[in-house]
Amino acid sequence: MLPVGDLDRSIDFYTGMLGMSLVRERRSLPTPTAYVAYGPEDTSPALELISGTGKSDKPWHGHIAISVQNLQGLCEKLEGAGVPFRKKLQAGGPTSSNAFYANIFDPDGFEIELCQPRD
Amino acid sequence: MLPVGDLDRSIDFYTGMLGMSLVRERRSLPTPTAYVAYGPEDTSPALELISGTGKSDKPWHGHIAISVQNLQGLCEKLEGAGVPFRKKLQAGGPTSSNAFYANIFDPDGFEIELCQPRD
Repeated sequence: MLPVGDLDRSIDFYTGMLGMSLVRERRSLPTPTAYVAYGPEDTSPALELISGTGKSDKPWHGHIAISVQNLQGLCEKLEGAGVPFRKKLQAGGPTSSNAFYANIFDPDGFEIELCQPRD
Repeated sequence: MLPVGDLDRSIDFYTGMLGMSLVRERRSLPTPTAYVAYGPEDTSPALELISGTGKSDKPWHGHIAISVQNLQGLCEKLEGAGVPFRKKLQAGGPTSSNAFYANIFDPDGFEIELCQPRD
């Protein structure tokens, strides 16, 4: 995830300059969001471009996102191992594409979003 | 790319906690480096974990890397469009896995490494 200052500017850059495709848009969110990738989202990694967050671009306010199938089981393992959580396991809201999600920190403090897509 | 404080600690985290595999190691580099991913590097995205950079973990000193087939052509397009370069197109050194590489900044100043693998 990259917090961006101008969503269209970033979409233009990643599609026009770097050959990605716009694979999804969520313009109606309070923080209008778009996804750009080299292939379908279910098989290819995508950059999540989020505008309007009010966060500065630097230092880094992004994260790595990883989709998993059994998030409850993974969270139990992570908690048992003492991995720090920024957000404990919770259900995704009505606008979320995820059934569940949680946010952890890796050993260097990089934030990782763990998400379980809806069935 | 994530600059990490302890390479083994990070490998253990991403393999043991998050189910990635260690797909490549470059321990003999001045900055010992490892790659972790959910599949083979040629078809799956990988995290590049670099230790010993002397850079603080925060703010962000990482980058996004994208492999391309015709880097010279892309760089000409990018230069023509006024995209800022941190490193102009150059040949990879003997320890590099890339024939050519260049580093640019996206519209928000996020650094992107463009690399053309050796044939």
